[in-house]
Amino acid sequence: MAEAKCLYIIVIGCGRLGSFLANRLSNQGHSVVVIDINPNSFDALMADQFSGFKIEGDATELAVLSHAKMDKADVVIGATHDENVNIMAGQIAKNNFNVPKVLVRILDPNKESFCRQIGVEYICTTSLAAEKMITALNQK
Amino acid sequence: MAEAKCLYIIVIGCGRLGSFLANRLSNQGHSVVVIDINPNSFDALMADQFSGFKIEGDATELAVLSHAKMDKADVVIGATHDENVNIMAGQIAKNNFNVPKVLVRILDPNKESFCRQIGVEYICTTSLAAEKMITALNQK
Repeated sequence: MAEAKCLYIIVIGCGRLGSFLANRLSNQGHSVVVIDINPNSFDALMADQFSGFKIEGDATELAVLSHAKMDKADVVIGATHDENVNIMAGQIAKNNFNVPKVLVRILDPNKESFCRQIGVEYICTTSLAAEKMITALNQK
Repeated sequence: MAEAKCLYIIVIGCGRLGSFLANRLSNQGHSVVVIDINPNSFDALMADQFSGFKIEGDATELAVLSHAKMDKADVVIGATHDENVNIMAGQIAKNNFNVPKVLVRILDPNKESFCRQIGVEYICTTSLAAEKMITALNQK
């Protein structure tokens, strides 16, 4: 992500992770669209940071993703609390819309191999936390 | 944590993170006790890796922590799904039982400053995932 380039980024899920990323990336000057099934979740978007668009809808529905102009997206981030929704939306972004960069959050380390199989880039928060904790213990 | 030293480690919460750590740390030769309020969660402990003890109980109750011999613990890890339970148990471990190393998992980045204030070491999975995702985007 070159500093000077404004990317079109779709963030799916506006919980803690999604809203954090949407606020940060919009504040950095990128064009950000956030999708969430629950409109109340958009309250976490900060007016002084987020200047993008909000779409209320189910991100596993093609019509919702088309409405978000996923065919134009440089980046799609799957950040809902449901890792299956993230993986499914990530697969659609990759296979149906040819999005160049797709990143999804998963919780279950057992789903890592499945993500690798289908070629969806992932961040597993459980593995990340476990690694960090084990590193912290080793520093004891 | 020197390789040769066997530590007494209490893991609170036997969900994905807690069970992963309990299996790994027990397998590394440490003495591990896992506490969870729901005994079904112990199913995630693998017989070929975990050789520690399981305690069913509420980890915010002093009696449960005493039963786990928290006064003897080298390390306490708060890994339940409820960050408030983790922080509370972490505070008790530190203040009531003088545990030398206490690590808790939190989800809400807004709780980081509170943890710093009370001197409880934390891993915030939301911040970790957000950092990792932003780094991955920068590598695009």
